[in-house]
Amino acid sequence: MNREQQVLARIERIRRRKPVVREERITLAHGAGGKATHTLIEAVFLEAFRNPLLAPLDDGALLRVGGERLAFTTDSFVVSPLFFPGGDIGDLAVNGTVNDLAMCGARPAHLSAGFVLEEGFPVADLRRITDSMAAAAAAADVTIVTGDTKVVQRGKADGCFITTAGVGLVEQPVTLSASHARPGDAVIVSGPIGEHGAAIMLARDDFGIEAPIASDTAPLHAVVAELLAVMPQHVRTLRDATRGGVATVVNEVANASEVAVVLREDDIPVRPEVTGVCELLGLDPLYVACEGRFVTVVDGEQAGRALEVLRSHPLGAEAAIIGTVAAAPAGLVLLRTSFGGTRVVDVLVGDPLPRIC
Amino acid sequence: MNREQQVLARIERIRRRKPVVREERITLAHGAGGKATHTLIEAVFLEAFRNPLLAPLDDGALLRVGGERLAFTTDSFVVSPLFFPGGDIGDLAVNGTVNDLAMCGARPAHLSAGFVLEEGFPVADLRRITDSMAAAAAAADVTIVTGDTKVVQRGKADGCFITTAGVGLVEQPVTLSASHARPGDAVIVSGPIGEHGAAIMLARDDFGIEAPIASDTAPLHAVVAELLAVMPQHVRTLRDATRGGVATVVNEVANASEVAVVLREDDIPVRPEVTGVCELLGLDPLYVACEGRFVTVVDGEQAGRALEVLRSHPLGAEAAIIGTVAAAPAGLVLLRTSFGGTRVVDVLVGDPLPRIC
Repeated sequence: MNREQQVLARIERIRRRKPVVREERITLAHGAGGKATHTLIEAVFLEAFRNPLLAPLDDGALLRVGGERLAFTTDSFVVSPLFFPGGDIGDLAVNGTVNDLAMCGARPAHLSAGFVLEEGFPVADLRRITDSMAAAAAAADVTIVTGDTKVVQRGKADGCFITTAGVGLVEQPVTLSASHARPGDAVIVSGPIGEHGAAIMLARDDFGIEAPIASDTAPLHAVVAELLAVMPQHVRTLRDATRGGVATVVNEVANASEVAVVLREDDIPVRPEVTGVCELLGLDPLYVACEGRFVTVVDGEQAGRALEVLRSHPLGAEAAIIGTVAAAPAGLVLLRTSFGGTRVVDVLVGDPLPRIC
Repeated sequence: MNREQQVLARIERIRRRKPVVREERITLAHGAGGKATHTLIEAVFLEAFRNPLLAPLDDGALLRVGGERLAFTTDSFVVSPLFFPGGDIGDLAVNGTVNDLAMCGARPAHLSAGFVLEEGFPVADLRRITDSMAAAAAAADVTIVTGDTKVVQRGKADGCFITTAGVGLVEQPVTLSASHARPGDAVIVSGPIGEHGAAIMLARDDFGIEAPIASDTAPLHAVVAELLAVMPQHVRTLRDATRGGVATVVNEVANASEVAVVLREDDIPVRPEVTGVCELLGLDPLYVACEGRFVTVVDGEQAGRALEVLRSHPLGAEAAIIGTVAAAPAGLVLLRTSFGGTRVVDVLVGDPLPRIC
């Protein structure tokens, strides 16, 4: 066994270990979408709630109701600041759940919204948020049909947290999962990455950097529906690249499908202003959250057609094939760099960007 | 017009006024389930999200999926303390959503769970909560199929907030709503009231009172299903008496159905230790939250049979007919007191018990 094989064997052993939360207390990393989040989910939530519908840990659960296939999903939103260039917690909360439903191959239909408000929160800000939610719901053709409001004392929350859940109908004969990628498949991203995360970091104003970057928050159901209508059987995986960014999504695919994902750095679309901000902040755009981009794994032979379909929609106009799926090294994501080298794109460790969504 | 008629006419004018939030900032009362909550919901949430499914403001929304009737509901939980005699935030979050589905006449099926955790929250406490959720889910025969976890910095939340949403199937030919009560109907409560709220107040340990009171948190789907199986067409309204207690529920019924509800104080079941604690704390048990009791309005001629069905189930063993529905004064709840007097039971103003659920 040569050195490289030894390293891969060691990675494989670690990967197969039963996840254990070693920390005694919750850290910000547990909410970052990376390694600590996965460990927490598997060692605590999956361990306690174990059931066949939850186990795949996809963006939502697929339920059978009567003769219909229903997708059901939830997301909590704690973004700070609440208002930022390109959006606010309101449209984020609607688009986030709309997109999780879309990633299940569902037509989003109805949303719920649970609010936790801090005593003293301005009613005018709440109105601005609900107006924004209403506009996002109208744009995504969903209705907010049920909700709840709780108020906690000043200092016991941070303005406004929103948890949305959603139901949608899966109308195409699709079976999507991070575990369905096969060697030879193509990996496509629907547009330039990292804009939401970069916009939030700038909006925090901690760095004194100014750049014309707005969140990409958008409802992805329509562009996804066009793709699925054209090739329902050839789409393996759909994932929106939120917390942990594209790097996290492709690691989930590599891990769940037991394949390698090989990305080509030169093909990954990143706007120059995002690259610039990420360089200043010491971040890798591959790990920075999007809120209006998704990664899809499709049959390699259909990649060109898929790209064509995506690019015909405004929200996929800058879609790009960014990599391929290979058989080995299973569970790893490799990046062919602009300089001709290769490096491992690991899962996110720690939290470079807390409260991004 | 005599004095009483003048008062009633004035109340009626106020009741029909378009609700306006006059406060510039959110107060604890906006989360208490009483008058301020209703105003906030109608003036902000309903105003922004207006659609026919949300408009009834029942415990959940009824959706048509294929040929099936589906109930969809959500609740956020911010109870403090997280652990209390009789339960914790975990079983409360499961039972709360199970009960909202049951109140829609649905068989609860699947739940989602969104967690907002504060940095530094003990992982052992989180495990205790998820174990409790798992046990409650098993007891209610539901599965937790999808979820999300966010972490906020220390001081930006209070340990752990949970938002559950749920879907369930409405299998009986029922049409339940707070607006369906008719003169001659009977008002029934499924058991002694105020135990959850009293237990939480004692658990806060602010008062130095000790009393053997535990939360009544329990899943109500089974006892409700038995009632609906026997008389699907004779049950008008089902509401669990959570925030704001039985007084709030019957006010919602009086208001939505444009009827009077006349309660008989002597018939309302309250355990002596709850009466005692409420007296010490200056609370009226009618406004104190339950988490395992519901109010139902049934056809008056079926009241005896309904009581019999409820009492045959352990969670309805102490059910009681507590009042009747009358045509006038529409929109008001009257209480015939033990001393032979009559007083108006108004909607809750302010928040005597913040963060009860």
